[in-house]
Amino acid sequence: MLRVEVGPDSLFGPENMPYGVFAPPGELFRVGVRLGDTVLDLAALLGDSMFARPDLNAFLAAGPARWRAARERLRELADTALPVEVLHPVHSVRMTLPVTVGDYVDFYASIDHATNLGRLFRPDSEPLLPNWRHLPVGYHGRAGTVVVSGTPVVRPRGQRRTAAGATEFGPSQRLDIEAELGFVVGSGSTLGVPVGVDDFAEHVFGVALVNDWSARDIQAWEYQPLGPFLGKSFATSLSAWVTPLAALAQARVPLPSQEPEPLPYLRATADHGLDIDLAVAWNGHVVSRPPYARMYWSPAQMLAHLTANGACVRPGDLYASGTISGPEPTQRGSFIELSWGGREPIAVGAETRTFLADGDEVTITATAPGAAGRPIGLGDVRGRILPAPQI
Amino acid sequence: MLRVEVGPDSLFGPENMPYGVFAPPGELFRVGVRLGDTVLDLAALLGDSMFARPDLNAFLAAGPARWRAARERLRELADTALPVEVLHPVHSVRMTLPVTVGDYVDFYASIDHATNLGRLFRPDSEPLLPNWRHLPVGYHGRAGTVVVSGTPVVRPRGQRRTAAGATEFGPSQRLDIEAELGFVVGSGSTLGVPVGVDDFAEHVFGVALVNDWSARDIQAWEYQPLGPFLGKSFATSLSAWVTPLAALAQARVPLPSQEPEPLPYLRATADHGLDIDLAVAWNGHVVSRPPYARMYWSPAQMLAHLTANGACVRPGDLYASGTISGPEPTQRGSFIELSWGGREPIAVGAETRTFLADGDEVTITATAPGAAGRPIGLGDVRGRILPAPQI
Repeated sequence: MLRVEVGPDSLFGPENMPYGVFAPPGELFRVGVRLGDTVLDLAALLGDSMFARPDLNAFLAAGPARWRAARERLRELADTALPVEVLHPVHSVRMTLPVTVGDYVDFYASIDHATNLGRLFRPDSEPLLPNWRHLPVGYHGRAGTVVVSGTPVVRPRGQRRTAAGATEFGPSQRLDIEAELGFVVGSGSTLGVPVGVDDFAEHVFGVALVNDWSARDIQAWEYQPLGPFLGKSFATSLSAWVTPLAALAQARVPLPSQEPEPLPYLRATADHGLDIDLAVAWNGHVVSRPPYARMYWSPAQMLAHLTANGACVRPGDLYASGTISGPEPTQRGSFIELSWGGREPIAVGAETRTFLADGDEVTITATAPGAAGRPIGLGDVRGRILPAPQI
Repeated sequence: MLRVEVGPDSLFGPENMPYGVFAPPGELFRVGVRLGDTVLDLAALLGDSMFARPDLNAFLAAGPARWRAARERLRELADTALPVEVLHPVHSVRMTLPVTVGDYVDFYASIDHATNLGRLFRPDSEPLLPNWRHLPVGYHGRAGTVVVSGTPVVRPRGQRRTAAGATEFGPSQRLDIEAELGFVVGSGSTLGVPVGVDDFAEHVFGVALVNDWSARDIQAWEYQPLGPFLGKSFATSLSAWVTPLAALAQARVPLPSQEPEPLPYLRATADHGLDIDLAVAWNGHVVSRPPYARMYWSPAQMLAHLTANGACVRPGDLYASGTISGPEPTQRGSFIELSWGGREPIAVGAETRTFLADGDEVTITATAPGAAGRPIGLGDVRGRILPAPQI
């Protein structure tokens, strides 16, 4: 029996305990929680077969009462000595996608990002379209190409328009990131029955980090009138660890003011802003620190909007915030913003960049205020660019 | 033992034999094929557990060689006497979704539809956007709200802009259909490896009918810049029967000419047009006969485009053609086109309509040339509108 030691500076103390899906060397994937630098094997520790499978979906579907009960039990166990065979050093295990993703929706909830992109994509008109302040704009992305953090990203090829007005096909020349927060749906809802804006925590289990890789040249040519498609669908990276909403109680903050006041179905009685600070590292150099607390639309509003027409959600559905950008240039969550459309190269250590080069690696991390008066970590989402295939 | 009798006018002779998922009264769902007015229970008939489950996905994943072998065996068996316990009258069984849908993509492949919608949504500019003739425009829809034919459709509520420029929330006032053909992916592909335009039949198992219900008032307000979202995501109806591509060999026709010539990744060496005639019945009255043969982009081009960036497909993925409209007013596959934006009411029997009223029922059927010199049927996709919830 062994008591898990957690250092005072750890971002993964017992007040955090995110869930993930891991495999010890040579073994099958199963559900675990992270405590310090140790992964607890939940199937072995709790004897519940719900955790002996390679995704969180069964646990997610079990609903909020089971999530609370599991968390309380784990908080108790974290203070006791545990059988050594349920403990695995985090650096010894492989991680896979924490959830089998049903539908993946991406929002566009940062007013600074939407304003910046509007200026870059439609320089001759108002940057913010007329609907933007009235509803959380969003669209469906590709669930089948959501990959776990660490999966290499092959540079996509695609069709684009040249400056001369011709079309050509080739490797993307403007490969970008989008630093986002993702929300993992636990309890599903019923087709035809909207989820109210105050029922957010009954349906959403937790948050994860998302990098919504984007090929800006492909996107710019394809996106009208039906929205982004191949410019986004080649890969979306998800962090391996899902932090339960319950661990983010100290991170709840009021939203920035919304003007005009949203329609009633988007008016929440509780605060659903989240004080989460992200950092974007490009080849190890932090190039941006996007502040989630500045997001205009809350995740509760996103879910209420997503289901307002009666669309149902299922356990394992994922929706993401859209790029998180703050008002300052150093708070922009995409390289097209940081380099202002590629016109202003960014210092990346001793080099400069506009968009991603082959071999580049991007790591997004985040922290939030935790219950113990110290920050908790949201893990990281990481990916390295491989060259486009030669076909 | 009993030999299944198929009348000379049946659309479901042995040259058709579509696959579906059915349940005899009081029993579980399992895979069957339709022969005349009889459903053959494949698990019981062939003794293969791949068919003893409530979707086609295991059979789809088994790949083209298994699809061919099953079809050959069923063609032989169709001429013999069969155990009576494997035969079920088609009107005695319940049907469910034939596939567990992974990702759902909707294209926009009819030049007449895209031109009509451009005129209606953007009256002051060129109806066809500059990219339209260069690539099959498409977007991701919601997989979790694909429902089987016959499922009632609750009128969605949503946000829209009034003529006076205010925003309001309420039941859609412009509820519409889109008559489409859907393509069911069988064999998956590998992330990072595009599917070539000539490899269509290695990956696509068959076709089904799709009604992509659309709330035009919600869609018009929300769709810029990221595309349709809640205007579409409340329900997409899929026919219960999937016709294998192998049954459509006689329906292969050349595409209408494409101008300009597509880029090489979209140039096919074989004909992938399909001579399929649809009929749209509104409360039992046929209001339109959309000709699939007029579609500009082929399903093989759609799949090649969808995967050109390395995005993978999975067994059970569904992609649809977009609304099928021909050049004639009587060939338009949506009511917004038939009623020209609601300004020209349509005769529906003794009544008139612009958009759907509560209680209305729409049934889309289709036929194609079959191997026996007579048409084969693609079943139907049907849905009735229920009133919006009073909340």
